[in-house]
Amino acid sequence: MKEKESKGIKVKKNEDLSEWYTDVLLKAELADYAPIRGFMVIRPHAYALWENIQSYFNDILKKHAVKNAYFPFLIPESFFKKEAEHAKGFAPELAYVQESEEGERLALRPTSETIIYDSYSKWIRSHRDIPIKMNQWCNVIRWEVKQTKPFLRTREFLWQEGHCAFSSEAEADEDMRSMILEYQAMARELLAIPTLVGRKSKAETFPGALRTMTIEALMPDGKALQCGTSHNLGQGFAKSFNISYKGEDEKDHYVWQTSWGFSTRLIGAIAMLHGDDKGIVLPPKVAGNKIVIVPIFFEDSREKVMKKARELHNKLTSCNPILDDRMDYSAGWKFNEWEMKGIPIRVEIGPKDIEKKQVTLVRRDTGKKESVSEKDVGKRIAKLLDEIQDDLYQRAEKFLKSHIDSASSLKELKEKLQEKKIVKVYMHETPEVEEAIKAATGGATSRLIEEVGKEGTCIQSGMKVKTVAYIAKAY
Amino acid sequence: MKEKESKGIKVKKNEDLSEWYTDVLLKAELADYAPIRGFMVIRPHAYALWENIQSYFNDILKKHAVKNAYFPFLIPESFFKKEAEHAKGFAPELAYVQESEEGERLALRPTSETIIYDSYSKWIRSHRDIPIKMNQWCNVIRWEVKQTKPFLRTREFLWQEGHCAFSSEAEADEDMRSMILEYQAMARELLAIPTLVGRKSKAETFPGALRTMTIEALMPDGKALQCGTSHNLGQGFAKSFNISYKGEDEKDHYVWQTSWGFSTRLIGAIAMLHGDDKGIVLPPKVAGNKIVIVPIFFEDSREKVMKKARELHNKLTSCNPILDDRMDYSAGWKFNEWEMKGIPIRVEIGPKDIEKKQVTLVRRDTGKKESVSEKDVGKRIAKLLDEIQDDLYQRAEKFLKSHIDSASSLKELKEKLQEKKIVKVYMHETPEVEEAIKAATGGATSRLIEEVGKEGTCIQSGMKVKTVAYIAKAY
Repeated sequence: MKEKESKGIKVKKNEDLSEWYTDVLLKAELADYAPIRGFMVIRPHAYALWENIQSYFNDILKKHAVKNAYFPFLIPESFFKKEAEHAKGFAPELAYVQESEEGERLALRPTSETIIYDSYSKWIRSHRDIPIKMNQWCNVIRWEVKQTKPFLRTREFLWQEGHCAFSSEAEADEDMRSMILEYQAMARELLAIPTLVGRKSKAETFPGALRTMTIEALMPDGKALQCGTSHNLGQGFAKSFNISYKGEDEKDHYVWQTSWGFSTRLIGAIAMLHGDDKGIVLPPKVAGNKIVIVPIFFEDSREKVMKKARELHNKLTSCNPILDDRMDYSAGWKFNEWEMKGIPIRVEIGPKDIEKKQVTLVRRDTGKKESVSEKDVGKRIAKLLDEIQDDLYQRAEKFLKSHIDSASSLKELKEKLQEKKIVKVYMHETPEVEEAIKAATGGATSRLIEEVGKEGTCIQSGMKVKTVAYIAKAY
Repeated sequence: MKEKESKGIKVKKNEDLSEWYTDVLLKAELADYAPIRGFMVIRPHAYALWENIQSYFNDILKKHAVKNAYFPFLIPESFFKKEAEHAKGFAPELAYVQESEEGERLALRPTSETIIYDSYSKWIRSHRDIPIKMNQWCNVIRWEVKQTKPFLRTREFLWQEGHCAFSSEAEADEDMRSMILEYQAMARELLAIPTLVGRKSKAETFPGALRTMTIEALMPDGKALQCGTSHNLGQGFAKSFNISYKGEDEKDHYVWQTSWGFSTRLIGAIAMLHGDDKGIVLPPKVAGNKIVIVPIFFEDSREKVMKKARELHNKLTSCNPILDDRMDYSAGWKFNEWEMKGIPIRVEIGPKDIEKKQVTLVRRDTGKKESVSEKDVGKRIAKLLDEIQDDLYQRAEKFLKSHIDSASSLKELKEKLQEKKIVKVYMHETPEVEEAIKAATGGATSRLIEEVGKEGTCIQSGMKVKTVAYIAKAY
C-alpha cells in the first residue's frame, strides 16, 4: 500500500483564496509551473475541460454559420499601427521575434484582428462575399507586466477569436449581442457559472472597437472575472485595412465588423468558483470524467469486487468513467485523490454492496452518500449528475445575487467593496471619473454599464446621469 | 447572373505539378498567402479537413490511453543545448523572442521534446508514474531556409506531437511501431493515401533519437512526401533532463521515451495526390462536406425545384451537405466551383428529375453521372461515397506500386529516378555513402531502410550489405 502523501491543501478557501487557488491547481493536476515566467503547463485534467468547451462551442459556431480557420502566428509590426486605438492598446504587451527578414519586426499574436483583416481585404470584393464569419482556436501571447496567475492571467493562453464582417451597423450589433448571449448561456449551461452581461464603459472598451459587451462572473473574494467579450468594431478596421465591397447599388462600401473571444481563463473560473477545501469541484457537463468507480478491496472478496467494478465500468461508458483499480493505493487515498480532482460522483463497490445488489454513490459537491440498486444505477447517476449541475449553478447564483449591492457615495462604495460585493453606482461615463473611482477604491473599476430610466447623481462628479456602473476589483 | 470569373487552373497537372499545386490551393480556397514570407493562411475549406483528421486521431489517442495537454510555446535556449544531437539538428531553424527576462533567449517551439521533458522530470518519480503518454495539438515554428510551399513546407504549421515515457526499450519500440502503423492506417482509411513504412537511415534519424520510423507517400512527380514519423528516443533525453524513477527494485532508472507526429502537411498530400485538372478531389471520409446539392433553376419551376432541394438537404444531413441555392450564379458556374473544391458527389435536381421522381448524381473523381430514384438516394450516396474512397485509394496504390523499382548501379538509379520512381538499392548505411548518393543524383535521399535476408553490393561503396534503401527526391 502506497504511503499516503500529504496531498491536502495548505489553507482553507475562505482564509486565503489566492493561496488556496494556486495550491488546488497544482494538486488537482490542472496546471503546473513552466520554466519561463508568466507561462504555464495545461495538464490533461484541465485540457479535457477545454476540449469539452471547444466541442460545445463548435456546435454554437455551426449554428451561427461561423467557420473555423487558421491565420499566421506572426504579425508585421506595421499592422498594429494601422488602427490607432488598437495600436495604443496592444503596444505595451507585444513580444517580437528577432528573425524577421521583412524589414520590420514581427509580433507574436496577442489577438488577430489585424492579420485576419489583411486577408479579409483580399477576400471581400462584392456584396456576395459578406457576411463573412470565421473563428480560430489558437494560442496568443501578451507580455503581461501585472502579476500572473495560472489560467486567470498568463503570458500565453489558449482562446477562440471570432471575426465577422457585415454590410450594416445593425447586423454587427446583432452579432455582437447574440455572441455575448451565447457566451453567457455556455457559462450557465456548461460551466454552472452565473454571469452579469452588459456593455463596457468607454474607458474599458476594446482598443479599436465602437462598443464592447462583456460577461462578468463574481469570485468568492468579491473580485469580478471577465469571462468573455464581444465587440462591435464599427468601420475603424475596415477603413485602416481597406475592407470594402461593391454593393448591389454598384457603389463601394466599407464593412462593419465584430470580434469576440473567450479563453482558457474559464478553467480558472471553474476552479475558483466551485472548489472547496478538498479540491476542485467539476460541473458534470464540462467534466472529462463524470464518475470514478472505486472498488473496495478485502483479501477474500477482491476477485468478486473487481469483476463487478469492471461490469459497472462497461455499463456506464456514457459517463466516461475512471475505474481506479490500482492495488497499491488504499481506498481512502483514492477518495482523497478524486475529491481533489473534483470528479462529480464517486461510485463505491464493496463486498457488502454486492451482497445487497447495490452500489454506493457519493456526490463530490455535498459529500452526500446514497445506496442505489444495481439495476437502477445508470438512471440514478444521470439524474444525480443533472442535480449536481443545477445545484452548483444555484449556489453560485445565490452568491452572486446576494453580493450585488448599490451605493450613493464614494464612502459607501468603499464599504460595500470591503464586503466583497459588486456595487452599482450612478457614474458619469468619462475616463476621468473612472480613474478617480479607481484611485479612491484602491483599484476597483467599472465592470459593465447599465442604461437606466431614472436619473441619478454620479458618485464622483456629482453630474446627473442615467448610467449605472457595476464597480468591483477584477482579476 | 454573375459573370463567370476565369477560375480555371492555369496549367495541367501533368505539365507543371508545382504551379498546378499552388494554383489549385489558392483557387480551391484551401490556402492563401500571408503577408510574411514562408507563412500561410489555412482557409476554412482546408481547416475542415484538419478537424476531421483531429477527430479521427483523437479516437486513436484514446484507444492508446494517450491524453491531450498543452505546454508552453516559448522554450529557454539552454533547453535545446541539453541533448547534443537535438541541439545540432534544430539550432539552424530556431527563432527567438526579444523580450526574455530570464537571462537567456527564448525560442519559438519547433518541437516540444525539451519543454515537455522538463515537466516529465518533475512528474515522474516512481514506477507507478509510468507509462506516461501525452499528446498536444499546436502550432510550431521552424525558420526554414529552403523554398517554402503551402502545407508542404512552411515556417509555421499545425501538428500533433505525442510524447511517451516507458520503463523499457522494448515498450518504447513497441510504442514507436504501433503509432507509425496507426499513421499508416489513418493515411489509408481516412485520406486514401498509400504509404511505405519503414525505419529511417542513421543519417535521416530524428536529432536526438535512437531510431526513427516513417511513412512515405509518393507524389505524381516521383518525389516522396514524409507523412509522419515516430521515434524511439532511447534514454538520451532522460539523461539530459534527468527523468528517472524509483523502480519496484527500489533502484533509480532512467525512462525510455518516444515521440511521434504528423502535421497539416497531410492536407498538401491530399491535394497533390488526388487532384486533377479541374481542382482538388477530396476523399469522402475526410471531406468536410460529402455532397453538394445544386438545384437547376428554370423560371417556371424554380419554386418546385427549390422545395425538393431543401427536402433533400434535410434528408441527407449525415453527409453534411452544401445546398447551393444562390440565385445569381449559373448552374455551370456552380459545377465548376464545387469541382474545383473537390466535393465528392454533386447532386443535381431539376424539373425533369422531379417529373421522374429521381435525382442525378455526379462523381467528382470520375465525372460519371447516374440517375437514382428519390427513395433510394440516401443509400446510393452512402455506397457511392465508399466506392469513391476505395477507388481513390486503389488508383493511388496502383501508381505507387508501379513506381517502385530497383537499381544496381548509380547510373541505373539516376535513370529510374528520371522515370519518377522510388528506387530500391543496396546501400551501406553511412552518412558518407548517403551524401555521395545525394550528390550523384542531384538531391535524392534514402527515404527508408529495409533489412533484407539476401546480401547485395552497395551501389556507392561496393560494400557487401543486407540493407536496402528506398531512394527518391523528397518534399
